[in-house]
Amino acid sequence: MTEPIYFVSLGPGEPELMTLQAFRLLERCSRIYTPVAIAPTGKRSSKATEIMLSLGIRAEQLISYDLPMSKQREGAERAYRRVADEIISLRQMGCDECIAVVAEGDSGFYSSSAYIGDHLLEAGLSIKQLAGVPAFIACNALIGGQLVQLEEQLRVIPGEATEAEWTEAWSSQHTIVVMKGSLCQDEIQRAVRAYPERKWHYLEFVGQEREYYSTDLEEICTRKFPYFSIIISKTR
Amino acid sequence: MTEPIYFVSLGPGEPELMTLQAFRLLERCSRIYTPVAIAPTGKRSSKATEIMLSLGIRAEQLISYDLPMSKQREGAERAYRRVADEIISLRQMGCDECIAVVAEGDSGFYSSSAYIGDHLLEAGLSIKQLAGVPAFIACNALIGGQLVQLEEQLRVIPGEATEAEWTEAWSSQHTIVVMKGSLCQDEIQRAVRAYPERKWHYLEFVGQEREYYSTDLEEICTRKFPYFSIIISKTR
Repeated sequence: MTEPIYFVSLGPGEPELMTLQAFRLLERCSRIYTPVAIAPTGKRSSKATEIMLSLGIRAEQLISYDLPMSKQREGAERAYRRVADEIISLRQMGCDECIAVVAEGDSGFYSSSAYIGDHLLEAGLSIKQLAGVPAFIACNALIGGQLVQLEEQLRVIPGEATEAEWTEAWSSQHTIVVMKGSLCQDEIQRAVRAYPERKWHYLEFVGQEREYYSTDLEEICTRKFPYFSIIISKTR
Repeated sequence: MTEPIYFVSLGPGEPELMTLQAFRLLERCSRIYTPVAIAPTGKRSSKATEIMLSLGIRAEQLISYDLPMSKQREGAERAYRRVADEIISLRQMGCDECIAVVAEGDSGFYSSSAYIGDHLLEAGLSIKQLAGVPAFIACNALIGGQLVQLEEQLRVIPGEATEAEWTEAWSSQHTIVVMKGSLCQDEIQRAVRAYPERKWHYLEFVGQEREYYSTDLEEICTRKFPYFSIIISKTR
């Protein structure tokens, strides 16, 4: 039987936060489909490539594909479609190599590479997903202590929510994690002022060289949030 | 400078889901404080020990401590206090060995071992927390596809919530993860019947030999949930 196509989670950025399972699988893969982010300015970057090379995965194992970064999703969808089509024709031609598609963080947690999986499943291929550490878990390890404990609930908001949902979140006793800070900078800065009794943790680019962490309310309220920022708000 | 005390996340049960960082740290630790769960029947078990031994960590590195499993928390608190006191006196006596305290899953996500950390911080010791894969992320990898995508929110409920919170969860478009199924079996079985348009995934002991997964609503509605069960409910 042909091997499944592996969807491999690389973790939140620090190479050593990859799991043993992911690392051992990547070591034996001959084709690792790896996204290269293309910013609207044309700038190219690939955190995924950096993570793998720094762990000794060889450049010749990697097959890079360009991934346009934009709220308009057509460019990304075309890129994913091309990767899926290439994998499907490889398997149709009888190629039984070990093939992986990698994603930063956990590949099942707000990871757009899953669209590749949808196309592969439609074509009758089988898939195995390898879990990873999501970015918000790494953020909490940096802060230290418990993200949630005992009967506390956790709510994760990916940058956008209705006014009623925001209000309900801040008024609750629960822990709130907000991702993609640039999409909701005004809302967060308003909430920091309106709910100062909550504990506010602001983090950018965790696990990378430009990592930044602050609990200073004035600093959070005046900062310009990049897309890769995470806010953790707790009641203790 | 003395090394910090490391709080090391072992991941959700499958040994290979430990991170490279956790594994490499444990390899060089001379004292790894490891919980042995004591059931109300007196039965002893230690998933943490199994995970580490199966990866080649040596028995002589492990320092087991008994952890009574009960909703009454006094026994567990005494156990954590004893571990903390032992670590504090080791450091006070000038011992600079590499010391770790391990927890299953992620040590900052509903992990009671954090109480040890509180005592260490009070005594002026420094702590470093190593992130891991939480159990619900491993459950989602087994299911396949996206736990949450685009603007979907995630809510994690640790087995207990108010009636208003349950109703709000099931009526929303969001993904709901419920842990510790035995604490809310009636509520879940009622919700499966009341909200059949949601997708329901029921999982037990993921990553262990007795792993069990079902999406069969009749099966979910008649099953007796153990404590280590997770329910994932999505609207797609």
